[in-house]
Amino acid sequence: MAKSDDLPQYLIAPNPGNTRLTRAVSGIDQNGEVSQIRVVEERPLTIYLNGQEIVTAMTIGDHPEYLALGFLLNQMMLRDSDVITGVDYDEELETVVVRTEMQTSYEDKLKKKTRTSGCAVGTVFGDMMEGLEDVMLPATPVKTSWLYALANKINRTPSLYLEAGAIHGSVLCQQDRPLVYMEDVGRHNAVDKIAGWMLSERASAADKIMYTTGRLTSEMVIKTAMMGIPVLASRSGFTAWGVEIAREVGLTLIGRMRGQRFVCLSGGERLERDMDPATVQVEDGKHRRKSTDG
Amino acid sequence: MAKSDDLPQYLIAPNPGNTRLTRAVSGIDQNGEVSQIRVVEERPLTIYLNGQEIVTAMTIGDHPEYLALGFLLNQMMLRDSDVITGVDYDEELETVVVRTEMQTSYEDKLKKKTRTSGCAVGTVFGDMMEGLEDVMLPATPVKTSWLYALANKINRTPSLYLEAGAIHGSVLCQQDRPLVYMEDVGRHNAVDKIAGWMLSERASAADKIMYTTGRLTSEMVIKTAMMGIPVLASRSGFTAWGVEIAREVGLTLIGRMRGQRFVCLSGGERLERDMDPATVQVEDGKHRRKSTDG
Repeated sequence: MAKSDDLPQYLIAPNPGNTRLTRAVSGIDQNGEVSQIRVVEERPLTIYLNGQEIVTAMTIGDHPEYLALGFLLNQMMLRDSDVITGVDYDEELETVVVRTEMQTSYEDKLKKKTRTSGCAVGTVFGDMMEGLEDVMLPATPVKTSWLYALANKINRTPSLYLEAGAIHGSVLCQQDRPLVYMEDVGRHNAVDKIAGWMLSERASAADKIMYTTGRLTSEMVIKTAMMGIPVLASRSGFTAWGVEIAREVGLTLIGRMRGQRFVCLSGGERLERDMDPATVQVEDGKHRRKSTDG
Repeated sequence: MAKSDDLPQYLIAPNPGNTRLTRAVSGIDQNGEVSQIRVVEERPLTIYLNGQEIVTAMTIGDHPEYLALGFLLNQMMLRDSDVITGVDYDEELETVVVRTEMQTSYEDKLKKKTRTSGCAVGTVFGDMMEGLEDVMLPATPVKTSWLYALANKINRTPSLYLEAGAIHGSVLCQQDRPLVYMEDVGRHNAVDKIAGWMLSERASAADKIMYTTGRLTSEMVIKTAMMGIPVLASRSGFTAWGVEIAREVGLTLIGRMRGQRFVCLSGGERLERDMDPATVQVEDGKHRRKSTDG
């Protein structure tokens, strides 16, 4: 573990010491010997919007209020104009109820849909592209030294990933500083928790960078763009449609970040190459993410 | 690439040469030089059950009929007792319609739900645990030599992963032989395509092993168990609830398979240790999965 004075000052950082988030499990290894390993928890969390049950998400269980807020926001079930009057988490019932001053337009829509045409389970996914046509992100410049600094700091931050593996991380960053580092069993949950935090804190998006351990798929690109964040960076790779959407909305998309290497498939003209890649420190094995953790 | 005569005879193998599945995209690399890379496609596929629109899945687009069948089966929208009269894929509309002789009990349930209580988006997820209490998998023995052979063969198989990255793979295996190797942008799609193939071919499950590149989360464990497959193996790690469910239903759960190492957290008593781990060939870098591809 890195010395703590060497680590960035996060607003929210992972808490691998939280015993509610991991569990010791016994098994046997390849030699038939008893092996005790730590594994991440995974719990159901049912999200309500006022009186409407929306979804049961599987989550490690930290920051349930942010997860609920961010999920509803990213699914466009909550709009900026909705006035939130309460976010009530019940640990025993494993529920979060988000309350708004008035019935949301989503609830209204859902009621109409139910009345007229029955219920399509795929509604949430089908509506993902909705609203995207209005998005044009600010052309925020990105220094390559920031990207290298962020990767370096984030990889050395004590995390559930380093403790127990099998988990995704997403980090909201500003220039070379990681601010909010969320982890969860699903990469969408991690991003949703960041969205919930941003909504709660009324944080600006135009000057932020999203760093994720996951792949740069269409869903991840859409989510980041809808959150107004103009830069998305990842260790992982791309899908074609993710790249296409990034180019349409003006999102700077950087993938395959490994040591000194990366590829930028959208917004390359906004990169400021202020650091010689040859001077970047190569990652050591301990902090290299090892697997396809999908 | 390995010599082809050295590779297993799959019933279905990845087809990295299929130009419909990947696309060349230009970007710039860390040195500001133009970099052309191949990325996987990601397309919407809307699945209908008779007249009911069910979901729009994002998929690379191969084997749409298997994906639709497997999705419906794994979501318990189709039952073994349902007689399938047609599976119609329309490439232009990006739809698959699965037709059954009679209205399914799912459609019936959906109609009731719509009439009585409005539509919970989370229905599909909420119902995942349903039916699991009846599952007790056969205590199929697993030789450790099979596990090593499978990992070795699968990792050397030409795949979209080796071609373009950012993709998950799941492989249906029998003893030391990989049979059906499916890849997709989501790990659930890959497993669903296998389920669709198994249904179409009326393949037995009790003598099979599921190998996945993804994590051993509750959803993946439930899916494998509901498919009747008694062994689930992965390079990736575990979640606590995944382990718990595996133990309840008698699923042999092996994770963190890397070279000679693995950990078995459920069903360790069914492992037959017929190979000395020290004799296992260590993976070379080329075939090591590198990232968290979530």
